Amino acid sequence: MTYQAPIRDIMFNIEHLPPVPESASDGGIDLADMEAALEGLGRFCSDVIAPLSRVGDEAGARLEGAEAVLPESYAQAYAQFAEMGWQSLPHPEEFGGMGLPRAAAAAATEILNASDLSFGLCPLLTDGAVEALLLTGSDTQKQKYLERMISGQWSGTMNLTEPQAGSDLGRVRCKAEPAADGTYAVSGTKIFITYGEHGLTENIIHLVLARTPGAPAGPKGLSLFIVPKFLVEEDGSLGRRNAVTCVSLEHKLGVRASPTAVLEYDGATGFLVGEENRGLEYMFVMMRAARFAVGVQGVAVSERACQHALLYAQERVQSRPVDGSTKDAAPIIRHPDVQRMLLRMRALTEGGRALAIATGGWLDLAKQGRNGAEDMAEFLVPLVKAFCTERSLEVTSLGVQVHGGMGFIEETGVAQFYRDARILPIYEGTTAIQANDLLGRKVLRDGGATARRFAGLVQETEQALQDGSAQAQAVARRLGEARQAFEASLAWLLDTAAADPNAAYGGSVPFLMLTGNLAVAWQLGRSVLAASAKLDQGEDTAFMAQKIATAVFYAQHILVECGTESVRVTEGSASLNDAALHL
Amino acid sequence: MTYQAPIRDIMFNIEHLPPVPESASDGGIDLADMEAALEGLGRFCSDVIAPLSRVGDEAGARLEGAEAVLPESYAQAYAQFAEMGWQSLPHPEEFGGMGLPRAAAAAATEILNASDLSFGLCPLLTDGAVEALLLTGSDTQKQKYLERMISGQWSGTMNLTEPQAGSDLGRVRCKAEPAADGTYAVSGTKIFITYGEHGLTENIIHLVLARTPGAPAGPKGLSLFIVPKFLVEEDGSLGRRNAVTCVSLEHKLGVRASPTAVLEYDGATGFLVGEENRGLEYMFVMMRAARFAVGVQGVAVSERACQHALLYAQERVQSRPVDGSTKDAAPIIRHPDVQRMLLRMRALTEGGRALAIATGGWLDLAKQGRNGAEDMAEFLVPLVKAFCTERSLEVTSLGVQVHGGMGFIEETGVAQFYRDARILPIYEGTTAIQANDLLGRKVLRDGGATARRFAGLVQETEQALQDGSAQAQAVARRLGEARQAFEASLAWLLDTAAADPNAAYGGSVPFLMLTGNLAVAWQLGRSVLAASAKLDQGEDTAFMAQKIATAVFYAQHILVECGTESVRVTEGSASLNDAALHL
Repeated sequence: MTYQAPIRDIMFNIEHLPPVPESASDGGIDLADMEAALEGLGRFCSDVIAPLSRVGDEAGARLEGAEAVLPESYAQAYAQFAEMGWQSLPHPEEFGGMGLPRAAAAAATEILNASDLSFGLCPLLTDGAVEALLLTGSDTQKQKYLERMISGQWSGTMNLTEPQAGSDLGRVRCKAEPAADGTYAVSGTKIFITYGEHGLTENIIHLVLARTPGAPAGPKGLSLFIVPKFLVEEDGSLGRRNAVTCVSLEHKLGVRASPTAVLEYDGATGFLVGEENRGLEYMFVMMRAARFAVGVQGVAVSERACQHALLYAQERVQSRPVDGSTKDAAPIIRHPDVQRMLLRMRALTEGGRALAIATGGWLDLAKQGRNGAEDMAEFLVPLVKAFCTERSLEVTSLGVQVHGGMGFIEETGVAQFYRDARILPIYEGTTAIQANDLLGRKVLRDGGATARRFAGLVQETEQALQDGSAQAQAVARRLGEARQAFEASLAWLLDTAAADPNAAYGGSVPFLMLTGNLAVAWQLGRSVLAASAKLDQGEDTAFMAQKIATAVFYAQHILVECGTESVRVTEGSASLNDAALHL
Repeated sequence: MTYQAPIRDIMFNIEHLPPVPESASDGGIDLADMEAALEGLGRFCSDVIAPLSRVGDEAGARLEGAEAVLPESYAQAYAQFAEMGWQSLPHPEEFGGMGLPRAAAAAATEILNASDLSFGLCPLLTDGAVEALLLTGSDTQKQKYLERMISGQWSGTMNLTEPQAGSDLGRVRCKAEPAADGTYAVSGTKIFITYGEHGLTENIIHLVLARTPGAPAGPKGLSLFIVPKFLVEEDGSLGRRNAVTCVSLEHKLGVRASPTAVLEYDGATGFLVGEENRGLEYMFVMMRAARFAVGVQGVAVSERACQHALLYAQERVQSRPVDGSTKDAAPIIRHPDVQRMLLRMRALTEGGRALAIATGGWLDLAKQGRNGAEDMAEFLVPLVKAFCTERSLEVTSLGVQVHGGMGFIEETGVAQFYRDARILPIYEGTTAIQANDLLGRKVLRDGGATARRFAGLVQETEQALQDGSAQAQAVARRLGEARQAFEASLAWLLDTAAADPNAAYGGSVPFLMLTGNLAVAWQLGRSVLAASAKLDQGEDTAFMAQKIATAVFYAQHILVECGTESVRVTEGSASLNDAALHL
């Protein structure tokens, strides 16, 4: 199960797709430093992590007593991962991090998760918990936990879901009773807790949503607590085992080596983070980081599927080419439909990567407090989460299809990507939740202002492309059509939502898929501009020509779906409502 | 794991969607007889087969020595299945069959496979082998094998694939040496043989492609042989075990209880079917039946996924409706995007069923030798196979999505449908193979004559709909647009294929998906005509109103994809060729 980190494409994106040119290198880390870091991570992932993914899938995470047992090779690999400092890449230098900007950190997340989604989930959750503590923890809490989480010595989790409270966190029942010493006794059951129990790290720092006595009902009565698996003494050493027990692990379709725990809190000692009743607000910090990272997981598993499909198509010999160029059977990569599948996989993967890295750039600008950057980042994150993960289902499915019958055999390994990917449009908020977030909070709330600004930025790219080559103009034309489809849907949604919310929200997922598609194509349009300039300079011409050809393919084969999505949003609304009466 | 056969919808289709009204009841079997047979099968499948599907998936088929072992409950269920005569439904009365017309037989295949795809594969392969022997076997061979295959006492297989010969059957190497007694000694390795080894039946009748000495190279040197697992004596009793051994079973993503065997033939005694070197031609008889049946499997697994998703959406309570109709959390079926997903699942499933049953009607007419029916059946079969199976991936994926996190847990059962379905667009010829067949043999070979006839039939339905209700007119409008997209693609393909086959075949799958979509919508348009007439008569009004609303939803949400597919075929061709240079 080989994997090579696509460093060339990643660096092209990091260099050329930040929202403003000067943000490409950030915090004193230049492009060469980033490339060196990502190359090092890439080598480690190729050598150590990628070979684990089949092993982990076959063994799965098992519960022995109350302990989650992963394959022995996972523990060894994790120890190396922490030792080499890979957990620290995106985090502040103050706590021992390397301080990579978000755009480059996204690439690191992609590389790690491409090599194994199950393994990558542990660092991913730790990153989210670090993010939440950095923004909402007290100084004491930061001192106590952050350094060892950032070093990878301890991992982090997020504990939101309960059996009756999945997407609907207002229904959370978990209780937190204040004790005399200022701590809280946390009790209740949390489900679907990723890496909620494992032995890869010496401690696990659970961030838990629970209700204090007398807190308001619903989402505004939730507080956030740190509940460590082992309590941490003043000197930083580990104290007694806390009253949180793993009572079962789920038997899942994919990411089978990632332990998904049911955790029973039985008066566990918890420490309030920030103020009471603001827990959901704080958790959203962690969720935004996690949602963005899950979107990147979609790109990651897509890249992995692409690499395997390409390799197989080059090696598998079957049937003569339809053009009669040889009388012998040829490698299947010579057959037009195999090419179509591979190109669709590549275009969606490179497109998703471009959107993720560009969005990372907006997140970097937002962190710097740049005017308007926060709104644009908030607009783009649900697109990265939902569009890149939904498309990863298609890419991994095509990966199976390219392999024909061999794709259905588990030993081939590509069926695992198809299974693993299936969780991505579900966890950290389903596609529908992302679409509600996009439509309700990011579009309707400001009366469409950010959405129109987004369309304006797309239009600037269109205009720049119109002055370019025939290929650039072809992209500009499809980009213009898709932007108009977006604007038509936007206008309809702004007109409709207040009077007929069912009609508007019935179109929310098609609207998100339209917007995500357009956002990807916008970035690919920007890639065409950058690649054309490099091509004119005679620089890395084969790579640049491929970037341009892939963007044109995307425009003609994938971006053209925007028109259909727009019909679904607008004219499709009445038929949805009518048919729903018969459900 | 409940399942209820959708008898009402099936009978509506059988009654109203045959190509000519008088073919609905065929061979003296009237609609009431068909309904009674299908209801009986439905009860048996709900009670006996559907509960097996989880059991079979968990246990899988295992090899013990050279014997494939299925769960004990499978053997009991199969014995009942044969005892009750369900294998015999579509076969001629002359050999003990019930002689159901193909349209109704398709419904029976759907019901059986919806209850468990793994179980359904055994009868499906037997049906194909019976079909081949009926058309190409000698009288002696028919007498010897057919009755006991039709009774379900013996099963059948098709042995085509070898490691180096998957889609490319010209590469088959398996040898057949003539012996002095007129039999042949068959030697070689066959892979991916569905139900190639099992103990459900007392004998297995393998149909095997192999080469006789001196046969031409390539596909025109293949002959077809009957190779029974146990040789059959003159008196019909079982004789010695033949030299065919199961050397391994595949470990698969889905249909895990269906044994997929590697068979080693080591001078096994075989009996030539028909003439030498015409094996592939004969095998196509079996393949057409099997391809049609696999398309029906796509409908089947879609129906199963629909039933589970609907049930879950009615029961799972989460979040307030966006329309503010209640302050309490509501069953998720009240949320617009859940409705959208359920309706998409239903529209694709009912649409696929309509196409399958209508195509069954054309197959019935073709069997009767009706003028032009054979060509139309040949045109429609690859659509049923590829469109209904590709769409089953989407439907089963939506089924997982409706379940949220629970969908990813294997015990919920819906992940299995997602895994099981993944083989459908691969086996019996991948989607690309179906698309090549459609474009090369069914469209280009007659210069587009059948394709134009198909478009003409669609147009007749459009015209009839234009005289109907506003809903009928809405369907007519979208049907017209899609037909024009089809005609534009067709014209482009007819112009392009000779000079630039790569360009034409690069668009073959988009063309197939366009054509399949249109063919489904055509049938749904015909449903609207039939349902409107019934509605006017006040008959079964809730059902008829649902049929109409579903057709309108299909037209506005799914049929509209045809325009995009047409762009891919025509304008997308150049960008595909350009980008392929960089693969």
